[in-house]
Amino acid sequence: MTTFVLIHGSWHDGPLWEPVITELEALGHTAYGPTVAGHGRGADKNVTHDDCVKSIVDYVESNDLADFVLLGHSYGGTVIARLAEEIPERIQRLIFWNAFVPQPGNSLMDEAPPHYRELFTSLAAATDDNTVMLPFPVWREAFIQDADLETATRTYELLSPEPLQPMADKLDLTRFYQSEIPKSYINATEDIALPPGEWGWHPRMSSRLGMYRLVQLPGSHEVMFTNPKLLAAKIVEAGRP
Amino acid sequence: MTTFVLIHGSWHDGPLWEPVITELEALGHTAYGPTVAGHGRGADKNVTHDDCVKSIVDYVESNDLADFVLLGHSYGGTVIARLAEEIPERIQRLIFWNAFVPQPGNSLMDEAPPHYRELFTSLAAATDDNTVMLPFPVWREAFIQDADLETATRTYELLSPEPLQPMADKLDLTRFYQSEIPKSYINATEDIALPPGEWGWHPRMSSRLGMYRLVQLPGSHEVMFTNPKLLAAKIVEAGRP
Amino acid sequence: MTTFVLIHGSWHDGPLWEPVITELEALGHTAYGPTVAGHGRGADKNVTHDDCVKSIVDYVESNDLADFVLLGHSYGGTVIARLAEEIPERIQRLIFWNAFVPQPGNSLMDEAPPHYRELFTSLAAATDDNTVMLPFPVWREAFIQDADLETATRTYELLSPEPLQPMADKLDLTRFYQSEIPKSYINATEDIALPPGEWGWHPRMSSRLGMYRLVQLPGSHEVMFTNPKLLAAKIVEAGRP
Repeated sequence: MTTFVLIHGSWHDGPLWEPVITELEALGHTAYGPTVAGHGRGADKNVTHDDCVKSIVDYVESNDLADFVLLGHSYGGTVIARLAEEIPERIQRLIFWNAFVPQPGNSLMDEAPPHYRELFTSLAAATDDNTVMLPFPVWREAFIQDADLETATRTYELLSPEPLQPMADKLDLTRFYQSEIPKSYINATEDIALPPGEWGWHPRMSSRLGMYRLVQLPGSHEVMFTNPKLLAAKIVEAGRP
Repeated sequence: MTTFVLIHGSWHDGPLWEPVITELEALGHTAYGPTVAGHGRGADKNVTHDDCVKSIVDYVESNDLADFVLLGHSYGGTVIARLAEEIPERIQRLIFWNAFVPQPGNSLMDEAPPHYRELFTSLAAATDDNTVMLPFPVWREAFIQDADLETATRTYELLSPEPLQPMADKLDLTRFYQSEIPKSYINATEDIALPPGEWGWHPRMSSRLGMYRLVQLPGSHEVMFTNPKLLAAKIVEAGRP
Repeated sequence: MTTFVLIHGSWHDGPLWEPVITELEALGHTAYGPTVAGHGRGADKNVTHDDCVKSIVDYVESNDLADFVLLGHSYGGTVIARLAEEIPERIQRLIFWNAFVPQPGNSLMDEAPPHYRELFTSLAAATDDNTVMLPFPVWREAFIQDADLETATRTYELLSPEPLQPMADKLDLTRFYQSEIPKSYINATEDIALPPGEWGWHPRMSSRLGMYRLVQLPGSHEVMFTNPKLLAAKIVEAGRP
């Protein structure tokens, strides 16, 4: 039985993993879903990417977690790549689930297609705390198109504004790219949060991992809401020895 | 419950939608499958692309259809792109199912791979009415490879010669590319009517839609014959609010 | 009912087809799984690609096999392409299952990504019989990632060292590329034995076949072990008239 630590993406927080954690537990595993600094309602949004990483290091150390499989979703990929540099001795395997794997020196924004860079920059500029809220039409069409409208609306209300700074911080990642921790990539085949092709998730991001284990499932970027049972089964497949 | 208007592709006509319409109706929806001008047996094949578009405008107006989801299959993509320019106020959403989305100013032929351009041009030149019949081996191997031979043969006999002119007419499409009608793309993952890769359907055609909802299903270019039930379910998913 | 001749890939031998042959027979078909020269435990590893081809020609002739569908897996693609040159009159159809389709004049090694070329060359240089054994971590992560560890370990023990020479021999293939034998490509959608993208199986290899029938299934490069029943069904679909 495996211990999983699940790192959410932008606009999400830890409690949103609950359906996936329930399914992982039903399969006999243990899973933790911490909230990254600057995320969730009421959080202080004035954070850097290093603050995000430190918040998970603190969580892992204060809960004395070790020998776990570490999964990052979307933006969470940038966090787990950094955690592989900070606490490698605790990590059995990294799983990137439709997650960013930035090239050395790049920020998440450097890896995003131009239309997202422009959208996020202009949305953040219109706020007084440098945050971005994903517009509902983008959520509905490009993030959770496999849900009905009721589910899309209900889950949208669980999201919270994303601080821009962690997405703009450049990440060195030299030690991550030298790391020999085993790696998996989970790709949901209908995930168009990044547009398929030149700017897509797979094989663009996955191929940067060197040798990696590929696991695929049908579904959108938010299959954690639309099919948590299948996602949990695929997380187990991606994380097993 | 949704009203669908289904625009067939080359060599097809409206009555061939019958299995799909039956399944859509079983799901509680209403669907229409008109025949595009110049298509079907006994039709006058001396038509332009504008004639094709006008025939559907006339159909929609004479049946007083409004607030419908408009789907185009294959060649039908060029027709629904033009309908989005002619009768936008009636269209809730456009669905391109393995359909052409020509770049502004291009004809369908401009978007087809060279071997099809040459094949169609030479076949049409050998007729006295400038039409093209798809050779059976191409139908069997590249259009309906997920059927058994009996089904492939039976459905081939339902096809009729395609007029070349509508495939050769250049389409401006400026207003289509400015349109804010929501758009979906349905991709059958084994569709090789266009060869996967450089000349393929997805993401080559789909990515031209800007923000779009992607829906995928297993099957060939002719999954309307080989799995109409699943196709209908995916049409509903692509067309819902 | 169809007769199949199944040509295994590198590190495999004929008896490993047993689960697939059992499933093909359950569907009413007949299937043969010969061992290619230089393959299997105890075989003389001092062979050329021509020796490999000749061993199957001899097998076919001595068993008086004709009117069969010829399938090649992985390295086996290079063998069936050559057999289409040597014994075309006996072959109804060629099926390439995640198989190499070398460009004219190329060896398999010319078609492999640089990291495999370097790995295989250095591994062979360290042996006294110019063979390569696939390292277990590559097998587990990139060849059979859809199996549990027990299955991955058990099947690894069935493999045997691969002679490098047949992978290094240049293949003319002029007559293969002129052949009009119908062709199918089976692609397992999670096969990362070749890395997806620039160096991948599909559409890179498949598109070289000209007009071909595409059949896909979920699974890894070794779905013959992890899902022989589904693979057999797809072989039938790829091989039927």
